[in-house]
Amino acid sequence: MAHMRTPQKVYLDHAAATPLDSDVYRAMEPYWAEQFANPSALTSVAVAQALKGARARAAHVLQVKPEEVIFTSGGTESNNLALFGVVASARQMGIQPHVIVSTIEHPSVLEPARALETLGVRVTYVPVSRDGFVQLDALKAALLPETVLVSVMYANNEIGTVQPIAEIARAIRHYRKVSGSRADGLVPRAYPYFHVDACQAPGALDLSVPALGVDLLTVNASKMYGPKGVGLLYCRKGVLVTPLFYGGAQEQCRRAGTENVPGIIGCVEALVRSESLRSSETVRLQGLRDYLQAGLAQAFPEVVQFHGSFAHRLPNNVSVCFTGLEAERLLIELAAEGIIAAAGSACSSLTDEGSHVLRALGVGDADAASTIRLTLGRSTTRESIDYVLEALQRLVPRLLREKKLQ
Amino acid sequence: MAHMRTPQKVYLDHAAATPLDSDVYRAMEPYWAEQFANPSALTSVAVAQALKGARARAAHVLQVKPEEVIFTSGGTESNNLALFGVVASARQMGIQPHVIVSTIEHPSVLEPARALETLGVRVTYVPVSRDGFVQLDALKAALLPETVLVSVMYANNEIGTVQPIAEIARAIRHYRKVSGSRADGLVPRAYPYFHVDACQAPGALDLSVPALGVDLLTVNASKMYGPKGVGLLYCRKGVLVTPLFYGGAQEQCRRAGTENVPGIIGCVEALVRSESLRSSETVRLQGLRDYLQAGLAQAFPEVVQFHGSFAHRLPNNVSVCFTGLEAERLLIELAAEGIIAAAGSACSSLTDEGSHVLRALGVGDADAASTIRLTLGRSTTRESIDYVLEALQRLVPRLLREKKLQ
Repeated sequence: MAHMRTPQKVYLDHAAATPLDSDVYRAMEPYWAEQFANPSALTSVAVAQALKGARARAAHVLQVKPEEVIFTSGGTESNNLALFGVVASARQMGIQPHVIVSTIEHPSVLEPARALETLGVRVTYVPVSRDGFVQLDALKAALLPETVLVSVMYANNEIGTVQPIAEIARAIRHYRKVSGSRADGLVPRAYPYFHVDACQAPGALDLSVPALGVDLLTVNASKMYGPKGVGLLYCRKGVLVTPLFYGGAQEQCRRAGTENVPGIIGCVEALVRSESLRSSETVRLQGLRDYLQAGLAQAFPEVVQFHGSFAHRLPNNVSVCFTGLEAERLLIELAAEGIIAAAGSACSSLTDEGSHVLRALGVGDADAASTIRLTLGRSTTRESIDYVLEALQRLVPRLLREKKLQ
Repeated sequence: MAHMRTPQKVYLDHAAATPLDSDVYRAMEPYWAEQFANPSALTSVAVAQALKGARARAAHVLQVKPEEVIFTSGGTESNNLALFGVVASARQMGIQPHVIVSTIEHPSVLEPARALETLGVRVTYVPVSRDGFVQLDALKAALLPETVLVSVMYANNEIGTVQPIAEIARAIRHYRKVSGSRADGLVPRAYPYFHVDACQAPGALDLSVPALGVDLLTVNASKMYGPKGVGLLYCRKGVLVTPLFYGGAQEQCRRAGTENVPGIIGCVEALVRSESLRSSETVRLQGLRDYLQAGLAQAFPEVVQFHGSFAHRLPNNVSVCFTGLEAERLLIELAAEGIIAAAGSACSSLTDEGSHVLRALGVGDADAASTIRLTLGRSTTRESIDYVLEALQRLVPRLLREKKLQ
């Protein structure tokens, strides 16, 4: 066979999962079988110190106070804690809460929002523009005196668009101010809080909370070369969040359960390392991403369409529709060549509904079903992109021919 | 100094945390940076297979169906999921639920129970006998037509007493039967479900669900030489549990979030290994425990009192009161000799309320404050027990003298 070769391994699904960084692995090492004690035990001074140090390091990256960092079991828990926790605490104060989310949030925001609706909470879903940005005017218009939470993701996991978080935060702060109490002088309202799902941001975008102006922020270790099963929620001092779990005073009484010490150490190491590699990796990945995109446009000018703005976009994301092709078929063929890519996100692959993000952009069902996501990462090189382009140049015409013959 | 010596390291706090087993460590190894893909991704066949295999192995130990195993972030989440999940689903069906728990449950059961009370759920706290057993007659008398859940722990984390789970399960099944619908023939009721917190059980007690007859069962990896931050909830097919988290169809739609693959692999390896060591370790630890207990009774006949029945008891637990001594002081002195023990449980050390378990047994505040918990484990040897006894023989008389001089 002429085309027989040892397939390279090219992993282009970094938005779904990242391999554990070797420095992170080493940082976790002492906490498995040596410093394994329960940090809540009276005599666990060293472990408690390590945990305290990790919390301070995470806080330093986010430029917040250590006690504002709540470690959780991951991005999904953090997002659920933000939504359910804010609504539950508002309800305890007699508020009939209203929540605003965008239509392109991750399922771990959208599904809690839907669950809140079944519990009688009003939710507004703010639409996005054709190129993937939350419509700020619609968001502003949706703000109500009962609005307790606005949740908008920093960068979209499917199409990579980066939302104008600081601008949204300013609009929310402005609303808090003008809608505040005026009894004697102006007292800004506490609500609405602004939550940002930043799971796709570390290593690519600025995580400075003061610059962003957010009240709650979700980070997930497993998307930034850290371990699975751990993440954090930044929760500004004074923000009221009812816990999801009870059973101990860990995490400032906001998240019970024995602390996952190796996981937390790994999460923080991954965060610090992503931040330190941010500028160099952003430049490098942007170059590779543009090279891949240009290669695709050149190879298949009649066939490819790209989703999401090219301007404010994650440096590692290409969302591309091969018009007329079945994405799932293409992914399986690519996998046979050692190339791992995704259709939409891993989280929606379990349901069979297709991509709610592409639908929100106004992409038709047929084009959505022809779309694949290629997300680059630290292991991606110019050679691996060349390999992918070359494989696609073989596969796409063949699959298109087969399709026509059907 | 005559007594100067290199202190041994003797860890006697295995009820709070266990070191990671080296076999478990090795089992987790491939899933950090090699098989790291998101198991929900279309192309992650190997990782999805590994996860499926782990679920089947866990199910085999518990003698249940694989789809009845829900992996969680640990014992606290599992217990919270059982309590909140069962109550929420019952409420969705229009039931005004009633819940029964024992007074000596872990905080991760008692605190959700209290939180449910603030949400208008009726909770009955069933008392225990002086030697630490749930009063079965009181439990039976508390069963009501609205009772949706009974939660009783398998073995107590502070005093080590083992509850008659199979007997309680029989009483609950009997109640389901006699209180069932009689319209045309007898249809047993679905409720009450029986949940058992088995966090202290692996490696010591039989985990066969059919033999126990329970509907829900919590296991925590970090108490059985597995990793922190992962556990499971057995949830019998047909048992209705509303999720705590939303955002993906993982864990049969009952626990969203990217699966913590290395953690789950480690949890299952730890469970299998604990089960395989169970009979030998039980005999060995019982011998060492009895030796420690006898040594204490002999050395301080006027001073020591033991809590909890000697009969139905975890093989590794000694809960001992040194009458007139301050437990916290003793623990710090022991730690200086390299001996790690606990006062009550790690989870209640964060609050300053003292032990609710000892209070439930009728132990006075002074005796409770003089009580330490010694929990043995795989690293415990005859020599380490001798070292502890010898240290106590030096420390206890000195601390008692100092106390008298105050």
